[in-house]
Amino acid sequence: MLDDNDWFTEVHQDAGSAFSLRIRRKVHEEQSPFQTISIYETTDFGHLMVIDGCTMLSSRENFLYHEMLAHPVLFTHPDPRRVCIIGGGDCGTLREVLRHPEVASAVQIDIDERVTRLAERFFPELTAANDDPRTTLLFDDGIRWMREAATASLEVIIIDSTDPVGPAAGLFTDAFYRDCLRVLAPGGLLVQQSESPLYHLDILRGIHRDLRSAGFSDLQTLFFPQTIYPSGWWSATMATRDSTIPAFRAAAANSAFETRYYSADIHRAALAQPPFVTRALRGSGD
Amino acid sequence: MLDDNDWFTEVHQDAGSAFSLRIRRKVHEEQSPFQTISIYETTDFGHLMVIDGCTMLSSRENFLYHEMLAHPVLFTHPDPRRVCIIGGGDCGTLREVLRHPEVASAVQIDIDERVTRLAERFFPELTAANDDPRTTLLFDDGIRWMREAATASLEVIIIDSTDPVGPAAGLFTDAFYRDCLRVLAPGGLLVQQSESPLYHLDILRGIHRDLRSAGFSDLQTLFFPQTIYPSGWWSATMATRDSTIPAFRAAAANSAFETRYYSADIHRAALAQPPFVTRALRGSGD
Repeated sequence: MLDDNDWFTEVHQDAGSAFSLRIRRKVHEEQSPFQTISIYETTDFGHLMVIDGCTMLSSRENFLYHEMLAHPVLFTHPDPRRVCIIGGGDCGTLREVLRHPEVASAVQIDIDERVTRLAERFFPELTAANDDPRTTLLFDDGIRWMREAATASLEVIIIDSTDPVGPAAGLFTDAFYRDCLRVLAPGGLLVQQSESPLYHLDILRGIHRDLRSAGFSDLQTLFFPQTIYPSGWWSATMATRDSTIPAFRAAAANSAFETRYYSADIHRAALAQPPFVTRALRGSGD
Repeated sequence: MLDDNDWFTEVHQDAGSAFSLRIRRKVHEEQSPFQTISIYETTDFGHLMVIDGCTMLSSRENFLYHEMLAHPVLFTHPDPRRVCIIGGGDCGTLREVLRHPEVASAVQIDIDERVTRLAERFFPELTAANDDPRTTLLFDDGIRWMREAATASLEVIIIDSTDPVGPAAGLFTDAFYRDCLRVLAPGGLLVQQSESPLYHLDILRGIHRDLRSAGFSDLQTLFFPQTIYPSGWWSATMATRDSTIPAFRAAAANSAFETRYYSADIHRAALAQPPFVTRALRGSGD
């Protein structure tokens, strides 16, 4: 039995599994206006941020998620000048976005300022680029922000949300996606983290259905490993405002800057959809 | 805290993590001449086999591992007639091997007959093809078997082993690989399960080094998700007796039979090596 003094455990009730990290100590915990945020010092994963009992990121392997949320969409858009990130308060996705020289402005809208302040303290490597003059950090309701944003004002929208419960539930709806569609400029692309291919096929199916219902016609789901998330396997789903997602800029993807997980080969690989997922998505308009 | 009456937990001491499955009950446990084998009935993963405290397979997601150990190597060899599986006592890899009509004989050599007998009882879907006339099940020391096997007598060797400790340690050595090389016919291929890319880069590096030192010159490592194994992310490494691993038979891979995870696209995708792995493998001869 794992002693709670030595281990942080997240139980995935619906899947019947649990994942634990060995900890030295809990270094911080607070109740923000929106959620409970805990920070642990682990023995092997660096710092761990937990929100409402769910693991959000660890120092050791957040590169997988952040690289895969930022780079595929930014190397697919031919000229990603104006980018917004909905959620993403830990600033790891923002850091990857800012590595793209084509990006002229990056707005991050997270409802909970405390996530960012704690990231500055416990994950400083992720927030080091926040003083980049292209950056705007807003702490606000991303759903309302999108509703009020100017039409055709963004090239790329990245939805870096928590699971579709609590504050993030509204980010997984066709109403929100409709606003995104309106705010995207011609050629604009959206990407949404889309949960585990093994545990959450119903959610993935719902994201596909809602994106299509909102008017997005071409979708691509990317698959990648993510050790601390349920099942250790995760996905992100990309959609275009236009009729077809263009081929990605493979030469740039291979040469623009050094990455740990992402590459042009990994980008192509992430687009390979396992047959059992393809079969499960039938009926969602795919 | 997870109650041991309700959860089976495997602790990955070196990685500082643990993975748990919720159980209804332990349905069997025995000490074989080689190891302790336990079978659990889980709430969401079907049956679970545990050997010496390490999760071996679950009904729910063993298809990932078994398809990825069998199909890439068999669709890469142009004519895989004679196949042997070292280890693999649960017969899941054997089942996938037998789906290839080119296979004329499949010999499985596992040291522990009890693994197979328990698979017949608790994972009957994996052993259903064992009465195929092409099959020979041997319960013997795979290392000695390979040492005594006829030169150039196999097209494909699949090393479906447990971790490189205990009875399986000898399967991760250049001495064993040298025997494999001798036993492979011209054009012959070997594949070895090669642990987690996130947790076990040192083992993966050792496998590459030992395969090269044994005389294998061209290697390919395949990456795939595997929820119940440490980190949820796994690998297998393929090597050729000749100078170059040929292109795989993609048309056959897409049409030969229905699979759940494997496809020609997934085969190509699995070969994409993340940059951090490529950097770690430098110095192993890669």
